[in-house]
Amino acid sequence: MTNEQQSIRVNLCSSGKEKPQADQLAFGRSFTDHMFVMDYTEDEGWHEARIVPYAPLMIDPSAMVFHYSQSVFEGLKAYLNDDGEAQLFRPQRNFKRMNHSNDRLCIPPIDETFALKAVKQLVSIDKDWIPQAEGTSLYIRPFIISTEPFIGVAPSRHYQFMIILSPVGAYYEEGINPIKIAVENDYVRTVKGGTGEAKTGGNYAASLKAQEMAEEGIAQVLWLDGVERRYVEEVGSMNIFFKINGQVITPALNGSILDGVTRNSVIRLLQHWNVPVEERKISMDEIYQAYQEGTLEEAFGAGTAAVISPIGQLVWQEHMEINDGQTGAIAKSLYDTLTAIQYGKIPDPFNWIEKVDDIGENTLKATN
Amino acid sequence: MTNEQQSIRVNLCSSGKEKPQADQLAFGRSFTDHMFVMDYTEDEGWHEARIVPYAPLMIDPSAMVFHYSQSVFEGLKAYLNDDGEAQLFRPQRNFKRMNHSNDRLCIPPIDETFALKAVKQLVSIDKDWIPQAEGTSLYIRPFIISTEPFIGVAPSRHYQFMIILSPVGAYYEEGINPIKIAVENDYVRTVKGGTGEAKTGGNYAASLKAQEMAEEGIAQVLWLDGVERRYVEEVGSMNIFFKINGQVITPALNGSILDGVTRNSVIRLLQHWNVPVEERKISMDEIYQAYQEGTLEEAFGAGTAAVISPIGQLVWQEHMEINDGQTGAIAKSLYDTLTAIQYGKIPDPFNWIEKVDDIGENTLKATN
Ligand SMILES: Cc1ncc(COP(=O)(O)O)c(C=O)c1O
Ligand SMILES: Cc1ncc(COP(=O)(O)O)c(C=O)c1O
Repeated sequence: MTNEQQSIRVNLCSSGKEKPQADQLAFGRSFTDHMFVMDYTEDEGWHEARIVPYAPLMIDPSAMVFHYSQSVFEGLKAYLNDDGEAQLFRPQRNFKRMNHSNDRLCIPPIDETFALKAVKQLVSIDKDWIPQAEGTSLYIRPFIISTEPFIGVAPSRHYQFMIILSPVGAYYEEGINPIKIAVENDYVRTVKGGTGEAKTGGNYAASLKAQEMAEEGIAQVLWLDGVERRYVEEVGSMNIFFKINGQVITPALNGSILDGVTRNSVIRLLQHWNVPVEERKISMDEIYQAYQEGTLEEAFGAGTAAVISPIGQLVWQEHMEINDGQTGAIAKSLYDTLTAIQYGKIPDPFNWIEKVDDIGENTLKATN
Repeated sequence: MTNEQQSIRVNLCSSGKEKPQADQLAFGRSFTDHMFVMDYTEDEGWHEARIVPYAPLMIDPSAMVFHYSQSVFEGLKAYLNDDGEAQLFRPQRNFKRMNHSNDRLCIPPIDETFALKAVKQLVSIDKDWIPQAEGTSLYIRPFIISTEPFIGVAPSRHYQFMIILSPVGAYYEEGINPIKIAVENDYVRTVKGGTGEAKTGGNYAASLKAQEMAEEGIAQVLWLDGVERRYVEEVGSMNIFFKINGQVITPALNGSILDGVTRNSVIRLLQHWNVPVEERKISMDEIYQAYQEGTLEEAFGAGTAAVISPIGQLVWQEHMEINDGQTGAIAKSLYDTLTAIQYGKIPDPFNWIEKVDDIGENTLKATN
């Protein structure tokens, strides 16, 4: 039996939790009624796919994830369209990336098609949790942890693949708003040959200190490459773009940068609009020079959480103000278009949207 | 109340588990009857120190450790001396290093004196678990995990500090034995500005792939620096030493190497013996040249698990055989001396040994 043919056992909770108020939606603090879980052992492969009430895990203190951080995760969202349907944005790329991360971390691959089926079924079951207000959505967090009770440095022989859901508010309370970021000169997030292009916990643990040390008001730090400390990599949990003299530039995927779904969508939209866009190495010197010459027209981050984050101030050598600290035209168009596609308000010329079918109560009862 | 004055609540298990047979002691697969646990919250700091029966943890699937790997750990051992007393080897250095790791990972510091007290009390309670056969010991694993149920990239506001114990066999079944290691040219463990000098899970997760790709028979890979890919850093879970032309050389602590307790002890012993020893940068070119000139006399790893691991073969450019693939004289003396001190067979001129007092049953019952 391949995973694709595997069925998902469903065990619904008897009474749901209270949902957070629309105006009290924080990011990642409340979770829905159910979660998806699947186990891996060497003998059985991935097995026992199930949707069960959201509940604490029972894990041995020697489980490898606590000691050697062999884990990967993903992040995507479900949006409600005007017809009340739930829809996902390019979810296939998330599971493809998860398998890429798995490979780097020596975690056995998942069946991407089956994972998408699981996400859809889970979202459908907890559909009432998708908030309706403008800019809100349901954040989806698939993740894999190594659960073998063994404190030796080696790939785990047991894993758990889980998906949990969290209703989230608009990232910016008053819509899109420029942020201030600072270039990080001391700490490094990762390096060529490391785990930078994998979405693994260790990269994020390594990033905390720089943020802690950053001056007040810095929303995120901008990472430079770990070798020459000259080339721009990414910001916090976003990829980065610069518009210099009419040309949009983003760092090329070099092994230490995450291959962002939003990054890829931005590039495709710009190409579609015939805006020149280049993926290549870009150094802080080049950016600073453009700033001094007055050709640094825009800078923005791109990621699932905030979609597009215009950068109003960039700190390196001095406080560079970009586009008078205002949201630039390209950033604005990208934000408007991407969110309009995500919420189904305009046509979807790239086939990026994957709708989630409603699963009738009866179907569920039958499998229950 | 400072942590030092805090008392440890003890809750003993009613009946102990069966202990593994002396000849079936694997590394890190069986655990003793009890564990130490302590919680951290912003309001209360570290609190509720307790020794309780070894049992699975109940942790929310959104606990930060599963997603962002904010965790640190330590590794040391308890040895039984000929008088039947349990003794630790330089445990203060482990808790000092843990606080160093905590700082890098934005985890609140622990009280080192209190942690040592906790380890001693736990070892004393599970003293029957320390195996008696030659070369065996009780491996001690202190670790801290981030437990706040929040999926956002920020330092956790809740932690759990735990200590678990595992009886372990002699690392080498037939005593000290040369191993084969290969220089890793593609993957990097960490880099300057990263987390290399912290004992955090992410470094170990990042290291798995290189080991998986290494050719058959390679016990561990030798990491090079992430910037120039020329300078030797460390092997798997050991620091490394070379003896070239009568001089012992080990890579200097540069921010990306772990400050090993065994490494430090080796340096101090060599100094005590008037063997010239240097901490400095050492490149693979220098090592290879010494090999070709016939002056690469010894190479060995040093770490708590194996104490000293002579390197019989080093793979880089070619298969270099060192000291005819035999254990060198320096490696042998270091191994013999370090283990003799650890097991209390010879005097301890450096005051490295910390004895664990037996805690009477009555004392325990009283606090129970
Ligand atoms: C390090 C990093 N870079 C970039 C991104 C943006 O990726 P995506 O657009 O797929 O959300 C993220 C967030 O997922 C991230 O964590
Ligand atoms: C990466 C690394 N280097 C070196 C060492 C050796 O350190 P110690 O001698 O304190 O065990 C270890 C093991 O703890 C390790 O994991």
